[in-house]
Amino acid sequence: MTATLADLGLVEAAALVAERSVSPVELVEACLERIARLDGQLLAFVEVLADQALAAAATAEREIGEGSYRGPLHGIPIAVKDLVDLAGVPTRAGSRILADAGPAPADAPVVARLKEAGAVVLGKTTTHEFAFSVFTPPTRNPWNLDRVPGGSSGGSGAAVAAGMAFAAIGTDTGGSIRIPAACCGVVGLKPTYGRVPKAGVIPLSWSLDHVGPLARRVEDVAVFLQAIAGLDVADSTTLDAPVPNFRGEAGRGLTGLRIGVPDRHFDRRLQPSVAAAVEAATEHLRGAGAIVERVAMPTLDHVMDVHFVTILAEAAAYHRARFPDRDADYGPDVRAALALGDRMSAAGFLQAQRVRRTLLDEAVGVFATVDVLITPTLPTEAPAIGQDRISYPDGEEDALTSLIRFTCPFNQTGLPAITVPAGTGHDGLPVGIQLVAPPLQEARLVRVAAELEAFAGTGDPRPPIIRTP
Amino acid sequence: MTATLADLGLVEAAALVAERSVSPVELVEACLERIARLDGQLLAFVEVLADQALAAAATAEREIGEGSYRGPLHGIPIAVKDLVDLAGVPTRAGSRILADAGPAPADAPVVARLKEAGAVVLGKTTTHEFAFSVFTPPTRNPWNLDRVPGGSSGGSGAAVAAGMAFAAIGTDTGGSIRIPAACCGVVGLKPTYGRVPKAGVIPLSWSLDHVGPLARRVEDVAVFLQAIAGLDVADSTTLDAPVPNFRGEAGRGLTGLRIGVPDRHFDRRLQPSVAAAVEAATEHLRGAGAIVERVAMPTLDHVMDVHFVTILAEAAAYHRARFPDRDADYGPDVRAALALGDRMSAAGFLQAQRVRRTLLDEAVGVFATVDVLITPTLPTEAPAIGQDRISYPDGEEDALTSLIRFTCPFNQTGLPAITVPAGTGHDGLPVGIQLVAPPLQEARLVRVAAELEAFAGTGDPRPPIIRTP
Repeated sequence: MTATLADLGLVEAAALVAERSVSPVELVEACLERIARLDGQLLAFVEVLADQALAAAATAEREIGEGSYRGPLHGIPIAVKDLVDLAGVPTRAGSRILADAGPAPADAPVVARLKEAGAVVLGKTTTHEFAFSVFTPPTRNPWNLDRVPGGSSGGSGAAVAAGMAFAAIGTDTGGSIRIPAACCGVVGLKPTYGRVPKAGVIPLSWSLDHVGPLARRVEDVAVFLQAIAGLDVADSTTLDAPVPNFRGEAGRGLTGLRIGVPDRHFDRRLQPSVAAAVEAATEHLRGAGAIVERVAMPTLDHVMDVHFVTILAEAAAYHRARFPDRDADYGPDVRAALALGDRMSAAGFLQAQRVRRTLLDEAVGVFATVDVLITPTLPTEAPAIGQDRISYPDGEEDALTSLIRFTCPFNQTGLPAITVPAGTGHDGLPVGIQLVAPPLQEARLVRVAAELEAFAGTGDPRPPIIRTP
Repeated sequence: MTATLADLGLVEAAALVAERSVSPVELVEACLERIARLDGQLLAFVEVLADQALAAAATAEREIGEGSYRGPLHGIPIAVKDLVDLAGVPTRAGSRILADAGPAPADAPVVARLKEAGAVVLGKTTTHEFAFSVFTPPTRNPWNLDRVPGGSSGGSGAAVAAGMAFAAIGTDTGGSIRIPAACCGVVGLKPTYGRVPKAGVIPLSWSLDHVGPLARRVEDVAVFLQAIAGLDVADSTTLDAPVPNFRGEAGRGLTGLRIGVPDRHFDRRLQPSVAAAVEAATEHLRGAGAIVERVAMPTLDHVMDVHFVTILAEAAAYHRARFPDRDADYGPDVRAALALGDRMSAAGFLQAQRVRRTLLDEAVGVFATVDVLITPTLPTEAPAIGQDRISYPDGEEDALTSLIRFTCPFNQTGLPAITVPAGTGHDGLPVGIQLVAPPLQEARLVRVAAELEAFAGTGDPRPPIIRTP
């Protein structure tokens, strides 16, 4: 398979659309062709809306032809995680519980904003059941069909990596945007808590849930975030904060930028090839003028306990209210998690929230001395399908814990975080690098991530399944 | 006993101090004389710091004599609830758990701010153990020694009512400032959540806890709040909001002010003489130009469940961390409450928090149509000591629930609320009227409460124990 329109970045494609050298219909056709060819193996989509997408693309083509160009999402095919309401299509959240759900009556605000910006929705992507874990069966990793795509936005990650959509909506409660992005070699951005509305998105753990984009390039996620960010008066978790131009700091260079490398938590149980990739990237940033220093975040020692208590308790509260008598219809992992969550004590939950507050205070303290944190996104490349444990030089760990260990601290603190691809690791699968910024500083993430992307972008960033004829 | 200096309002006394016609030493002596005469019966103080208070008063007298007058708290004797740190004195919180506590190393920020304003601390007042209920043994009600003073700031209420201090610090988690103020016939103000720092105050339920004043006149609590309000950078629960002049709206009159009378929750299980007092007061406000209308707050149907779940769970979390192995040292009611709290489920707690959020949304909606709410502070006069149940025309209820039922909604919502005396009820004990305002509108409360106070102020507001020779 040779490179096609479907392999362009979103902003690259948008430039061609804006100058009318490519029609949105051609973009949709290129994605549909890629879906037809690959999704039988990758299983990234639960629903493809070919006719609707072609019709929307034709409308976009006509609008643009008439001079009504709405901006860089106009006519761009995107996908929506099947945890998010798309009007007229059932939201099934990967669960038998919702097998009989009727069509969603309205678009979630994030979807409505994307459509308003001109985006064309191609279809809905797989999620781990109720976004509850990080493996996303039955979806496969485009880099290696025996590996997981990550999750819970695994369908979005695989779709974007394989050129089946230019970008996709993901949700992230413990890393569920960043984990599949890292596993599949694309960019994923979890915005600040409250930056993006969550109405019309099925909750997993409402104090940890975030909505955000996956796309192939840093500038692509910035453009996508631009469309979905901002106060929703109907959503009390959204922030009434000004929305800056998220690409506004790009190209400023890194001279004098202070980059913190957190100690301890991110040094343990880490594959050497991942460590080497992060080190090389950090050195590159230093070479570009950044000041790199180690920072201490000792409260991260407690982060996994706090994360599990919070997510299990909040999920149990949500599901208890909504699905009281249907235990047997949940998958075994979600059923077990909900049963555990139901037994959590309020006092234990509250103690966890106090630790969480300490964690945020600690992070705020760290950001008094550095501008951005850099960490690996995951300690490992994508595990094999069915792999329960992961081995490290200093011990082994269950796969779920491994995949969320570096990402979930920034759900607990609500801090914005991005993952960018940084080449491949020992097994030939993508390695992601995570950058974290103070609240509302997504533009700073875009600035630094773009520099990392330029550094890592020497090889072909596409998975072999696309490259191989 | 005839009226003495100790029966003046705080602001009245301050005027005499400012013009140097009365010395702070005379005020302290008047209070100490009252304490010596009455506190053997009332048991409002756990610690009287006579020598320290006289010394501080002498210092204040000298400062004022030298022209360094600090304002209306300068040289005014006040009392501090024994849940709040006063440097050099143990904080015992009415509990055997803290019987061996050493002297507090520093003043709580609220105490430090009062001292900075020149206030003279007379001593520490009784609290229900760890502020956990509303009866405050062994303290008695100055209006009738067989009745409870309310609580948990019962010592503060009794001390202020009996002229043993000009004002006192209270804390309020379900009504613990407003309940003793209403039971004892004084004014109590629970500020907006976050308006006043809580460092150095032993938590009961941190999302519900508030610190505020009890005093004999509305203008007195305004002056007191002026001293203690405002951001404390060391206290993440305080708000970074401007502190207005809390007496700035007084005297504006009520023409056009919209007063809401909440339905249902405040109509049920209500003593007729209390209902009549509130109705008369409301009519007075209407006569003064206010527009009175009924407002619906249906979520209040769930308020008691939500309150108990929240307070028990948070208290259990706090005590579990601090006093793990000392069950036997708690009083029986607190021990039972903590045991119950320990068994609360996280999912149930979280469901309660969601109802709480609905309650706040509902209140915010109501404040789009009215400026202030008016309710009875309590549905009854102060119960007898040892009385478990209270009878109403439409049924009976346990005494604890009765005493917090009208106040705790405004802990759950964090809205500012004040209680002012409105004459006496069927049993000859004080009746309180509660006013509630939108967040940060304490000045509006002061404005309306002063009007009510002028209306109610025809009889002698002092308890018989002072009036009787």
